[in-house]
Amino acid sequence: MNIQEVWDKAREVMVPGCRVCPECNGKACRGEIPGVGAIGSGSSFTVCRDYLRRVRVLMDLVYEPGEPDTTLELFSRRWDIPFFMAPIGCMGTNYNGYLTDEEYAEISVGGMIESGGFAFTPDAFYDELFELQLPVIRAHGGVAVPTVKPWAVPKLMDRIRKAEEVGALAVACDIDSCGNLLVKKAGKAVYPLSPAAMAEVVQGARIPFLPKGIMTAEAAVRCADAGCYGIVVSNHGGRVLEDSPAPCSMLPEIRAAVGDRLKILVDGGIRSGLDVFKCLALGADAVLIGRPYTIAAHGGGKEGVVLYTQKILGELRSAMVMTGCRTLADITLDKIRIGD
Amino acid sequence: MNIQEVWDKAREVMVPGCRVCPECNGKACRGEIPGVGAIGSGSSFTVCRDYLRRVRVLMDLVYEPGEPDTTLELFSRRWDIPFFMAPIGCMGTNYNGYLTDEEYAEISVGGMIESGGFAFTPDAFYDELFELQLPVIRAHGGVAVPTVKPWAVPKLMDRIRKAEEVGALAVACDIDSCGNLLVKKAGKAVYPLSPAAMAEVVQGARIPFLPKGIMTAEAAVRCADAGCYGIVVSNHGGRVLEDSPAPCSMLPEIRAAVGDRLKILVDGGIRSGLDVFKCLALGADAVLIGRPYTIAAHGGGKEGVVLYTQKILGELRSAMVMTGCRTLADITLDKIRIGD
Amino acid sequence: MNIQEVWDKAREVMVPGCRVCPECNGKACRGEIPGVGAIGSGSSFTVCRDYLRRVRVLMDLVYEPGEPDTTLELFSRRWDIPFFMAPIGCMGTNYNGYLTDEEYAEISVGGMIESGGFAFTPDAFYDELFELQLPVIRAHGGVAVPTVKPWAVPKLMDRIRKAEEVGALAVACDIDSCGNLLVKKAGKAVYPLSPAAMAEVVQGARIPFLPKGIMTAEAAVRCADAGCYGIVVSNHGGRVLEDSPAPCSMLPEIRAAVGDRLKILVDGGIRSGLDVFKCLALGADAVLIGRPYTIAAHGGGKEGVVLYTQKILGELRSAMVMTGCRTLADITLDKIRIGD
Amino acid sequence: MNIQEVWDKAREVMVPGCRVCPECNGKACRGEIPGVGAIGSGSSFTVCRDYLRRVRVLMDLVYEPGEPDTTLELFSRRWDIPFFMAPIGCMGTNYNGYLTDEEYAEISVGGMIESGGFAFTPDAFYDELFELQLPVIRAHGGVAVPTVKPWAVPKLMDRIRKAEEVGALAVACDIDSCGNLLVKKAGKAVYPLSPAAMAEVVQGARIPFLPKGIMTAEAAVRCADAGCYGIVVSNHGGRVLEDSPAPCSMLPEIRAAVGDRLKILVDGGIRSGLDVFKCLALGADAVLIGRPYTIAAHGGGKEGVVLYTQKILGELRSAMVMTGCRTLADITLDKIRIGD
Repeated sequence: MNIQEVWDKAREVMVPGCRVCPECNGKACRGEIPGVGAIGSGSSFTVCRDYLRRVRVLMDLVYEPGEPDTTLELFSRRWDIPFFMAPIGCMGTNYNGYLTDEEYAEISVGGMIESGGFAFTPDAFYDELFELQLPVIRAHGGVAVPTVKPWAVPKLMDRIRKAEEVGALAVACDIDSCGNLLVKKAGKAVYPLSPAAMAEVVQGARIPFLPKGIMTAEAAVRCADAGCYGIVVSNHGGRVLEDSPAPCSMLPEIRAAVGDRLKILVDGGIRSGLDVFKCLALGADAVLIGRPYTIAAHGGGKEGVVLYTQKILGELRSAMVMTGCRTLADITLDKIRIGD
Repeated sequence: MNIQEVWDKAREVMVPGCRVCPECNGKACRGEIPGVGAIGSGSSFTVCRDYLRRVRVLMDLVYEPGEPDTTLELFSRRWDIPFFMAPIGCMGTNYNGYLTDEEYAEISVGGMIESGGFAFTPDAFYDELFELQLPVIRAHGGVAVPTVKPWAVPKLMDRIRKAEEVGALAVACDIDSCGNLLVKKAGKAVYPLSPAAMAEVVQGARIPFLPKGIMTAEAAVRCADAGCYGIVVSNHGGRVLEDSPAPCSMLPEIRAAVGDRLKILVDGGIRSGLDVFKCLALGADAVLIGRPYTIAAHGGGKEGVVLYTQKILGELRSAMVMTGCRTLADITLDKIRIGD
Repeated sequence: MNIQEVWDKAREVMVPGCRVCPECNGKACRGEIPGVGAIGSGSSFTVCRDYLRRVRVLMDLVYEPGEPDTTLELFSRRWDIPFFMAPIGCMGTNYNGYLTDEEYAEISVGGMIESGGFAFTPDAFYDELFELQLPVIRAHGGVAVPTVKPWAVPKLMDRIRKAEEVGALAVACDIDSCGNLLVKKAGKAVYPLSPAAMAEVVQGARIPFLPKGIMTAEAAVRCADAGCYGIVVSNHGGRVLEDSPAPCSMLPEIRAAVGDRLKILVDGGIRSGLDVFKCLALGADAVLIGRPYTIAAHGGGKEGVVLYTQKILGELRSAMVMTGCRTLADITLDKIRIGD
Repeated sequence: MNIQEVWDKAREVMVPGCRVCPECNGKACRGEIPGVGAIGSGSSFTVCRDYLRRVRVLMDLVYEPGEPDTTLELFSRRWDIPFFMAPIGCMGTNYNGYLTDEEYAEISVGGMIESGGFAFTPDAFYDELFELQLPVIRAHGGVAVPTVKPWAVPKLMDRIRKAEEVGALAVACDIDSCGNLLVKKAGKAVYPLSPAAMAEVVQGARIPFLPKGIMTAEAAVRCADAGCYGIVVSNHGGRVLEDSPAPCSMLPEIRAAVGDRLKILVDGGIRSGLDVFKCLALGADAVLIGRPYTIAAHGGGKEGVVLYTQKILGELRSAMVMTGCRTLADITLDKIRIGD
């Protein structure tokens, strides 16, 4: 199987829920919630592609040659790659149910481990999704990062305990999902997370805690002050608020505000190893890729996930070779220019 | 009745005068005066939509949760909402007469009161329009803001006296209408308002006076110096001068110039609660919405007005929740970025 | 006859040489030399329309009302209008010969005088065009500004003498035409004008001398140092060099460099009274309008020229009323914003 | 034969490998490698045309007239022109083999000498291409600049020795080709060039050495520090890394960083004498033109190369006349503006 065959197969089993577009850019599916689209005009997602296209990369071949090192330290482990699978759930509601959430969890967690990385797994407004993933994560030695919705603290801590019990690497909390319409309609109470509650959660948790959905330097500083391990700069794939800027466009000011106090991950429209490079140059430590990994999972199962990872990794390595970056730490803001 | 049915009904009764476009953006009707269009190429109105689209909103979910408070103090009262109905008149000339001006006045004034706000009512180059609205306003306890054309001071004061007599909240004066073609063709004398005349009017009036059609910091300062209660930053819906900038784009420098000396309202292409949020972030205290309210009035009468208000209010509340704004005062310039 | 009839008639007699487009913007005729087009891709002309569209005009109605005064002092006379007819010649080569150059001269000079202004008349690479206009100018009391090509000084002075003899107001020299292909092909020698030669010409001439084709502050300063009365900021309608900026876009820096030492005129894509306003705000004292006046001349003779003048004047007056400008001197850079 | 006939003939013999587009802008062939296209979306090449179009040129005709001098000193010789043929090889792989590499070498080297300049000749991942060009260069007195791939130093020095033996003017090294897919697939080892290796090569070579593929001020400074004679600012025609900026857009900062320590050449989308002018204004000493010269060679052999050179030279001379530049040194940054 090759990556083209993965995509061809995905097209067979996913259309029309997801059109498996040549470039996954949020245009065909704009406004489709439930579904895979971004909210309303879809501008909070399409802006990601527009912004990344404007980031131009500077070649530099005057350096001592050597193999690029793409490994990354995170959660006190070293990973082969600086890009991970974003949490996407509800295969029946958002996609067409070709994969069950159990199947998807196994493919995600297992496939990403085979790829040299790990998956973020999703939470939902119903309890079953979170629960069904726990045995999968346990079976894979805990090498995954469960995401929890921003429940009231007791329920949130309960979820974290369960994540700890299966040996999870860390836990993320997509605080931006309190604007998710599906969650609201189900009448479940999810809330913004106050700095005090955040500090309480961080202190109560035995594994690293990462809020997801941070978009400003001010909020990032609050996370650092609360003792968070890291953050995910994200606008929830554009699904919760229209006319957000691209998450990656906020990276320089967020990084400037928090320095090394936080690991900074980012998502939103990252579609190539060159995009990974751009996000790292803008200030991220690592990135999350969502929809394309879901396509890979549908089209090729774990093998699809691995093949897609290899494609992105190859592109990232090429970008590093062409820009004189030996390690991820070399990928700095002066390697890019923001153009028109 | 729901908002979609309001729009469907409006389409039945308004087309082709107004096309009831999916997004009311001034493109289909450009140049149509009489009619609902903006002058010439329509650029003074389409620029509003273009500018608002460029305003990107920053999510922030790290805060102590709580219900957003959308209330606003204006004219020594507290209103549920910070957006009001803009003055539109001449239903027969500008629309197709499906509603009479009397009917429209009753729907506007009554519907906005039911909505928790109030309507600005229009003046025209003939006296009947202003007069026929007075009993409607009186019947509703004066909860409306009549607008007067920039007549010579004696006539202007006469109009203001009549507004006072029916208990109106305040009086606005659309000084920008001296460029209105219909007014000119009718041979009626309307004029720019000199600072001296403005001061005279303000001193003579027993209710707050708000010039409408202010587009520069310099003019706003003159209004503040003349003792005005507030201003409406507006280009008259793009109907009086081509190639105006978007009114909302001028808000930051106007606010910087006048500080808290004036209440600042703004209109021009505001089409969602997120747009209301953007205008408040740019510096407005409140906004006016015109054409869409007229569509709501045609499609659903008072109920249409209320339904449309609820839609906008819901969107505004969502935007506040997603950005960590508990009150309207929290909606500040640092909540947005002006993008490309 | 009204302005629409003038344009309709022009369409009958000019197409296809000139398409008499709804907006004369240099797109349909791009690259057509001979003809009325700009060189190559036509970008040096289309950029004018693009730039002028980006200039946004700020309404201001808070001022003491009064009739706008559009009069301008130039050549020690006062004119009703601050816009004049640009020099266009060779009716047979560039248009289709429906008008002879004699007829066009009579319409131009006579029509502009009736309009309250004056025409610039053209020179060509053959002597007849300049000569045939002299009796026309004389018959109209010299109220015109002949343009001369940048010949070697003796021939240039000879032309100036002839202009003086018929009582011309001033003489312009389109130094930018030394790049004109037709001139080159005819083997005639036209040259750049050195500062020394320019000073010699200025001292030798008894009437004001205005170089046309100035595009930089540096060149404008040289003209001022040479004693010129004024300059015409122009790129020759985009006909001599590709990828020029819009002449009007250079006005602010040119005005800043020369202050009041020179009268500054500008041409290039000015198509409405609002465009005249924009150019004056950018720094010009007056403007030249070319192709549309030629259309007016073809469609309505002198009456067409007068009607077109009245249209532009009416638009300029409206713009002044809407922006609080009582005189042309009030039209300053703070009345506009350069947008996107 | 004229230039139009050259292009017509080229269209006959090159389509569909190269479409011989009216403007060679990298759109029709985007992604075609092997072939003549740029990598992936082709954006690293199309950005060149987009950027050059934004560079606007300032007319200036107020100067002492005189013939423009387009000669350039390079490699201790004076050349008639400041633009040269870029190295393009593998006529069979990248084009359709209508010309053999031998024929192309003869046309290139011979045609450019007839044109008053010289050609850069290519290297490839197989040895034959480099070798077969040596006798051609020798036969033409060495008036060419062989390009070598960034081989390991011994092989690189071997190539340089061979270039010296045939009397070559200088040697270039396209270090950016280490990202070339064809080179990788062939399993040949090409590498980035370290500053130390570069210094070793420069010291070992008896002719000037110019790295090609420099895109940053930092890399340019390393080349200067290593003793290089000059550099070619280039992104390899967009063929090795997506989303590069236009090489010419980096010229101002590169020139500012190295001053006169290096001769700076540039390539990428230069399609007219006006483009040559723009690149010189941005900071280059000279430019390379690639694909259009290949078209000229296919359509007219040496005569085609000469005709194309004359076209570009004529346009450059026109641009110099129209901007008051007597020599290439007069073409400075203040002669242009970067627009929208």
